[in-house]
Amino acid sequence: MSDTRTNAGIDNISSYRKMHVLADGPDRLIMCLSAGNLSMTQHVLGQLAEGLEPKAAGDHRRMIADQPSMFRAVQLVGEAVTHADAEIGAGLRAAEINGGVSLLVGGRIGGGPIRLFLVYDAGNFIECLPESPFLQIGERKYGKPILDRTMNYDTELEEAVKVGLLSFDSTIRSNLSVGLPIDIVVIPANASRPVIRRRIEADDPYFQNLSVRWSMMLNEARATIPDPPFMRMG
Amino acid sequence: MSDTRTNAGIDNISSYRKMHVLADGPDRLIMCLSAGNLSMTQHVLGQLAEGLEPKAAGDHRRMIADQPSMFRAVQLVGEAVTHADAEIGAGLRAAEINGGVSLLVGGRIGGGPIRLFLVYDAGNFIECLPESPFLQIGERKYGKPILDRTMNYDTELEEAVKVGLLSFDSTIRSNLSVGLPIDIVVIPANASRPVIRRRIEADDPYFQNLSVRWSMMLNEARATIPDPPFMRMG
Repeated sequence: MSDTRTNAGIDNISSYRKMHVLADGPDRLIMCLSAGNLSMTQHVLGQLAEGLEPKAAGDHRRMIADQPSMFRAVQLVGEAVTHADAEIGAGLRAAEINGGVSLLVGGRIGGGPIRLFLVYDAGNFIECLPESPFLQIGERKYGKPILDRTMNYDTELEEAVKVGLLSFDSTIRSNLSVGLPIDIVVIPANASRPVIRRRIEADDPYFQNLSVRWSMMLNEARATIPDPPFMRMG
Repeated sequence: MSDTRTNAGIDNISSYRKMHVLADGPDRLIMCLSAGNLSMTQHVLGQLAEGLEPKAAGDHRRMIADQPSMFRAVQLVGEAVTHADAEIGAGLRAAEINGGVSLLVGGRIGGGPIRLFLVYDAGNFIECLPESPFLQIGERKYGKPILDRTMNYDTELEEAVKVGLLSFDSTIRSNLSVGLPIDIVVIPANASRPVIRRRIEADDPYFQNLSVRWSMMLNEARATIPDPPFMRMG
């Protein structure tokens, strides 16, 4: 799940898709979500689309579509991040522009398990595992409490998507740099269930309803908690 | 309201009061809350306790207790921050230690209004005004959504303290660097109401109850929101 707001300063806000298809074929679906410097992100994606330099002369360029496992696919993404930094990182640092980028890379190859990774701007990465069954990048703190409270490895997909939207709703309210539309891709572990792709626009009735109801119920919940006893002032 | 957890790395966590009395006399009560580098904070507080250098030879050292207005008191705090940076900032930067500090300074002098300021690490400051009736420093993002949703200029003090505790509860759940006890000072605008000072310890029954109830009600609220319609998979 990703929002679409990009800014180069508060007076330069625009809408960019942050969810990208790295590979979509009969044997694989690999998605990438990006946060951080937009030029760096596009550099990484451009490089992955063209393929990375072959390791030996005469070999094919190295493509995500040819990687035999998710681990190898993510390694290639990490390598593309390292290359992008080598090519444009110094220029950005000289201009005192934050060139940091972080990526979520998730999907499945062949009959393998779905795997989700977070790639850091040094090209290193970690995998999402059952103990901490979600990963966030970008403006993540506002929306983290609701995820911490509710997400666990056994959370149903439907519930997880709903909670993800609640998390975005909180973030959107508190931070101008995050905004609708929200892109969603759901890849069920059960390969016989269809992949779901959805864009939630600003006028989406489900999201509007979710946002209003959540706000109302938070207010009701808050009202039922008694005032602090030490505040009973004479 | 401030927590008490300080860390110098994840393996070096300790408890320090972050709420400090700058002046407490018949004509004034001025509190200061701190976030950021602890040595910098203590340098600022130490300097304010001793008084800043007089502007002219033979004058008294400049004390918070002698300032005629909150504005002048906060200016003195800002000056102390600038001095602390001049004395130890370069050393911290050379060691690549973040010496940043931010302070909330609030209170009242004489019959003047209560005023609350946020002092940044360059010594500059802004005042809390009715349009945005709260200020946060430190690890502020996790707890901001609940404040954004509920706090306005007309919020009753009792309610504001309750919501402040809910904000800390969310932050404590999501971030190890924030923890109980929580210190609270409430200065009512109506000077005939008493000032309230309270420390919420880890075993405080009101806070425990608030935390459990809030968690339970959030779960109930979440459960009543329908699943996303696009998630109805065949």
